[in-house]
Amino acid sequence: MQEKKFSNDGKSSIQDLLDRYRPDLKPFEDIYRDLHSQPELSGQEEQTAKLAAEHLKSLGYDVHTGIGGHGVAGVLRNGAGPKLLLRADMDALPVEEKTGLPYASTRVVKGPDGVSTPVMHACGHDSHVTTLMAASSLLHSARDHWSGTLICIFQPAEEHLTGAQAMLDDGLYEKIPKPDLVLAQHVMCMRAGTVGIREGAFLTAADAFDVRVFGRGGHGSSPQTTIDPIIIGASIVMRLQTIVSREVVPGELAVVSCGSINSGHSSNIIPDYLDLQLSVRTFKPEIREKVCKAIHRIIEAECEAGGAVEKPRITRTFSGPSTINDEKTVSALRSTFKSFFQERLVEVDRPAASEDFSLLATAAGAPYAMWIFGGD
Amino acid sequence: MQEKKFSNDGKSSIQDLLDRYRPDLKPFEDIYRDLHSQPELSGQEEQTAKLAAEHLKSLGYDVHTGIGGHGVAGVLRNGAGPKLLLRADMDALPVEEKTGLPYASTRVVKGPDGVSTPVMHACGHDSHVTTLMAASSLLHSARDHWSGTLICIFQPAEEHLTGAQAMLDDGLYEKIPKPDLVLAQHVMCMRAGTVGIREGAFLTAADAFDVRVFGRGGHGSSPQTTIDPIIIGASIVMRLQTIVSREVVPGELAVVSCGSINSGHSSNIIPDYLDLQLSVRTFKPEIREKVCKAIHRIIEAECEAGGAVEKPRITRTFSGPSTINDEKTVSALRSTFKSFFQERLVEVDRPAASEDFSLLATAAGAPYAMWIFGGD
Amino acid sequence: MQEKKFSNDGKSSIQDLLDRYRPDLKPFEDIYRDLHSQPELSGQEEQTAKLAAEHLKSLGYDVHTGIGGHGVAGVLRNGAGPKLLLRADMDALPVEEKTGLPYASTRVVKGPDGVSTPVMHACGHDSHVTTLMAASSLLHSARDHWSGTLICIFQPAEEHLTGAQAMLDDGLYEKIPKPDLVLAQHVMCMRAGTVGIREGAFLTAADAFDVRVFGRGGHGSSPQTTIDPIIIGASIVMRLQTIVSREVVPGELAVVSCGSINSGHSSNIIPDYLDLQLSVRTFKPEIREKVCKAIHRIIEAECEAGGAVEKPRITRTFSGPSTINDEKTVSALRSTFKSFFQERLVEVDRPAASEDFSLLATAAGAPYAMWIFGGD
Amino acid sequence: MQEKKFSNDGKSSIQDLLDRYRPDLKPFEDIYRDLHSQPELSGQEEQTAKLAAEHLKSLGYDVHTGIGGHGVAGVLRNGAGPKLLLRADMDALPVEEKTGLPYASTRVVKGPDGVSTPVMHACGHDSHVTTLMAASSLLHSARDHWSGTLICIFQPAEEHLTGAQAMLDDGLYEKIPKPDLVLAQHVMCMRAGTVGIREGAFLTAADAFDVRVFGRGGHGSSPQTTIDPIIIGASIVMRLQTIVSREVVPGELAVVSCGSINSGHSSNIIPDYLDLQLSVRTFKPEIREKVCKAIHRIIEAECEAGGAVEKPRITRTFSGPSTINDEKTVSALRSTFKSFFQERLVEVDRPAASEDFSLLATAAGAPYAMWIFGGD
Repeated sequence: MQEKKFSNDGKSSIQDLLDRYRPDLKPFEDIYRDLHSQPELSGQEEQTAKLAAEHLKSLGYDVHTGIGGHGVAGVLRNGAGPKLLLRADMDALPVEEKTGLPYASTRVVKGPDGVSTPVMHACGHDSHVTTLMAASSLLHSARDHWSGTLICIFQPAEEHLTGAQAMLDDGLYEKIPKPDLVLAQHVMCMRAGTVGIREGAFLTAADAFDVRVFGRGGHGSSPQTTIDPIIIGASIVMRLQTIVSREVVPGELAVVSCGSINSGHSSNIIPDYLDLQLSVRTFKPEIREKVCKAIHRIIEAECEAGGAVEKPRITRTFSGPSTINDEKTVSALRSTFKSFFQERLVEVDRPAASEDFSLLATAAGAPYAMWIFGGD
Repeated sequence: MQEKKFSNDGKSSIQDLLDRYRPDLKPFEDIYRDLHSQPELSGQEEQTAKLAAEHLKSLGYDVHTGIGGHGVAGVLRNGAGPKLLLRADMDALPVEEKTGLPYASTRVVKGPDGVSTPVMHACGHDSHVTTLMAASSLLHSARDHWSGTLICIFQPAEEHLTGAQAMLDDGLYEKIPKPDLVLAQHVMCMRAGTVGIREGAFLTAADAFDVRVFGRGGHGSSPQTTIDPIIIGASIVMRLQTIVSREVVPGELAVVSCGSINSGHSSNIIPDYLDLQLSVRTFKPEIREKVCKAIHRIIEAECEAGGAVEKPRITRTFSGPSTINDEKTVSALRSTFKSFFQERLVEVDRPAASEDFSLLATAAGAPYAMWIFGGD
Repeated sequence: MQEKKFSNDGKSSIQDLLDRYRPDLKPFEDIYRDLHSQPELSGQEEQTAKLAAEHLKSLGYDVHTGIGGHGVAGVLRNGAGPKLLLRADMDALPVEEKTGLPYASTRVVKGPDGVSTPVMHACGHDSHVTTLMAASSLLHSARDHWSGTLICIFQPAEEHLTGAQAMLDDGLYEKIPKPDLVLAQHVMCMRAGTVGIREGAFLTAADAFDVRVFGRGGHGSSPQTTIDPIIIGASIVMRLQTIVSREVVPGELAVVSCGSINSGHSSNIIPDYLDLQLSVRTFKPEIREKVCKAIHRIIEAECEAGGAVEKPRITRTFSGPSTINDEKTVSALRSTFKSFFQERLVEVDRPAASEDFSLLATAAGAPYAMWIFGGD
Repeated sequence: MQEKKFSNDGKSSIQDLLDRYRPDLKPFEDIYRDLHSQPELSGQEEQTAKLAAEHLKSLGYDVHTGIGGHGVAGVLRNGAGPKLLLRADMDALPVEEKTGLPYASTRVVKGPDGVSTPVMHACGHDSHVTTLMAASSLLHSARDHWSGTLICIFQPAEEHLTGAQAMLDDGLYEKIPKPDLVLAQHVMCMRAGTVGIREGAFLTAADAFDVRVFGRGGHGSSPQTTIDPIIIGASIVMRLQTIVSREVVPGELAVVSCGSINSGHSSNIIPDYLDLQLSVRTFKPEIREKVCKAIHRIIEAECEAGGAVEKPRITRTFSGPSTINDEKTVSALRSTFKSFFQERLVEVDRPAASEDFSLLATAAGAPYAMWIFGGD
């Protein structure tokens, strides 16, 4: 962003901008409460998307909707200069709200299987939507003070880590310009008014696998007639440990956890199959790829070692990239934030979570950063 | 048994005895059908026991009831000579009958937990009771032809492998004389009229263990905050294999099967505990003891290796002795049976099952044998 | 053998034969001492073979030499009747003699690698050669008392379990008739004059494997640059246990022992490869085959699980069949031996050794038996 | 150090100091060649220590000798101000020199076991000694330009990581003042004139363990008579992997390598014991302690799981602290070095090595840093 009329150095300029251009916050508070009481699950963000799109249109943004599901992109062209993408995610979680708030969600949705599921904005995406709507207003109002292109993205299905990729697959960057920088924020359980930042490794990549190992069941007193899947499963669990202990550069983050192992129901019947659920955390893409490959290699080979006649079934149930904040971007943000937030700007530890917004940046070859802000 | 008036050599003598002393079989057929339609679960054999006890009393046996639950022992003292114990088991199984027989069981019982369970004589103990009742009549009628003491035992709770021990614990051999020989039979799916026999190792000892290994759960991305019970469980499974492969005399039968392993429900939550169910089969008591000790040793040590702060819980859920037919007894039986059953006497393989009647013999220091007969 | 002039029933007939036909034993004692002091290693039995061949020729046997190395076969055709093969093995062991006997071996041979090796008849094949030479004399002298064909085999390289197969591969049964029965004996550490016998499973099949697992070495502080062969080796050792514990019929003899594991020399250098030495014992051919296949399957799959780029090298260094004495043959031998040896005939346990003479029988479809005799 | 007469800001001042106070380097070059051709093994640094001590005495330092072996400490008190400790290590390695240099070492020493060992300054400690001698001259000459206390330590037995601790145990800081800052340098294979620096984690802590696991040997065909140490060893190797994969904070450096496993010599003899050699690398002391404790826990428990009757023998053969350069010190060094070395000052990766000089700092509660310089 090129500053036009305000000086770039510190609190005064941000404060000045806020003083002059901050929109009336009351309607946004109402929007927040509405969103909170009407949460929409991943892939079902129809009303939220409509709200955001209409808001951007009303401001004169060039708006695209229905991208990769309910994705919304609004573009504000404001002369020469860098192209900045701000992203908010819209989806809620299948969690029952027990906060007792006057605007608490009572929503229950029925899945395709007929099962009823309560829904709640338990991850705070309602505040992400609201704040990006407010920011799009402010930056529009203050457009004389900067030049460049502003892109506001309202992304669906972040909780499944599929929404960003879906927008890209649906031709996002054929519809709108590729950004030069991508920013996102996440509300956290810390004091409202506080902002946290960190350069480099911020959120891990997360992958999850469901594994079914096929043996051949039989009576426990005749193991020679069976292919014992529990032996295969135990061997896999022990061998998986060697990925982190032997195959990853010491000091680089990599976690391979087996969160569940389940097979059989009685002491004397050898079961037909065994199920494992695995979770993987990494930062570096090359380590992520190496670890996931090693998981496949080990599971397949251990099934062969156990004499399994059928290949194992390995299904990736979850896949999100790591978030590694660009150092120069964080350095600039830190300086700007510091001027305004003062001692309320903190350095943060790595949260144990994952995000997919970085795909919007890496697909465009752009740097990116995410910061967190307090919501309590 | 000392023969008095019949020769011991062959078919003629048995045939003569049967011709002269076989009871009218019609009432016994009715008894069989009644028992079949009114099956009683292990520990609930009240009516069956009453029926058997009254039959023995009516013949003049010295009858003891309520031994170790519903156990019945009838003693017929018939002069000097050996003391022979014949044993029948009385209990049925929690299985729904689908035979469509006119006298099929429709019985459903309610457990203490309020759950309804269908009951069926699916293991043929109804025919064991009936045939021992008939035999007690015949041997009583033919008592001029032998001298000694005949003991007829109707045993409860064989399916749990607890009934024989319960009768012993309840002072069986303080109430009745210790036998010099113990015999039992089991009906099998083979042609009616056929008898099968085998000396030596016949039925394995069976032991089962429920194992709970305690870890400390946590998030899959922070394994260092947890004690991962799945690692401990996998190590146990692998190490248990070494009992059979390393600790048992090669060629001696021993099986240690892990029939179930269950822990956790999701990919990224490390669970608090892990459950195993183990089944053990052996013949020789010293190998049985060695194997069971090794199971405890390995599980406890693997929990220590894994840093578990709590000791594992190892519960023996099942425990039955092996049945190793006395060679001299089988040799005598073979010779006697051969004379009567001719080519319908067969040598049999080891069934994959367990029995507890041998405890009635080993507790008295007596030899024992079991044979099987066809019920189809 | 059909008896002609002596009755078959007992000690008198054997004693009579011995009284009339026993050769002067003095020259055979000298032969024994010469053989003992001039032992020849497996594959180098040149002088022993020459001695045996000349002896047979001098008696008029039809003699073939140089079969499968230094193998000798002498055939005495003596009319109609069964063809009996008696086999003695000739080779000594690379062991230094420390008995202090006047005729102790002082022989040292130089191998192709220039290394000197002491040689000793530590396994008693010298007595096998001597007794078969004496028996060939006696049976020749007594030839009026039996009719049929007598085959005396002096076999090389028994210690390597390769000599019998080598004789077969060299066309043994194109040179001489196929036998109807094969007998062999082995001297043991038990009182001289004693004979031991056993029907059925007598000696296990023995197989041995040298295994080299290829990893890729490197510095211990950078495991990610290596393929750690020690991990692969440890996994193989644990997995091999499951062959006996899971893949073999419970109660059937099978042993898979890993007798050595060797890799690396220092704490912080990950080595390039790991060596295992395995030993397998079985009785039944189908179990032997299953076990050996499983060993290959497991080793190969564990190398794949470990990411080894090179296939493991699995070399069978030893392979001998099981010796399962024919029941009818042993029954006949027992009866004949009993008549002569009386209480000096004993039933024996299974020795922990292997033999290859049974190949001479199985290749001809003939029954076989081996007995042992005391040499102390 | 408080600068007295030179400005602290950059190249000019260092260059000025060098121009005015650099000693004649020719004698130091001769010293270097002498040291190189007369290397002394760890614990045998007698002549090197004598040379250094006499040099310091000749300059008027207060010199202590024979500290913790051949350790030398020289103190130059130069008014009020901070106390700076500079450390050089003196020992050579048991390596044969093949450089062909005119001053190459031809030294061979005989150990207490009579074995001859070649000796070489293969790790460059000769240049460390020489440069610290030269620096002690320069800083003495320039003493008008700074005030404080300078301590020059010539340390023995660094290669064994025992020398620093030995000096401390021998009362180093009762003989000389405790330093406020400790600095050391190491020559590396990079262009002469180049200097490398890095803050924070620089060199890992290194620990090594020799482990002997006791089983009970026997014949491979009778595993039940043995306690198979190879099973125990394989279990240990697999379980050790879980330390890094499960017990260490993800992303923190920890390496547990098993560099050797050795047991047995033949396929069919189960050996009496098994040897492992382990190497451990860590940065954080709390992780180092956790890892080393877990190694003991796992090895001991796996021996129990295997039924070992004797406890394992675990010997720490190597133990060196991590080197974590003080950030403020490195920041100051970087600024000073930059002014002089310009583009020849580089940031460096972590070398895969260990050092013990940091003990001289941590024992005094002082910050420390090490840099590297090119020697090619």
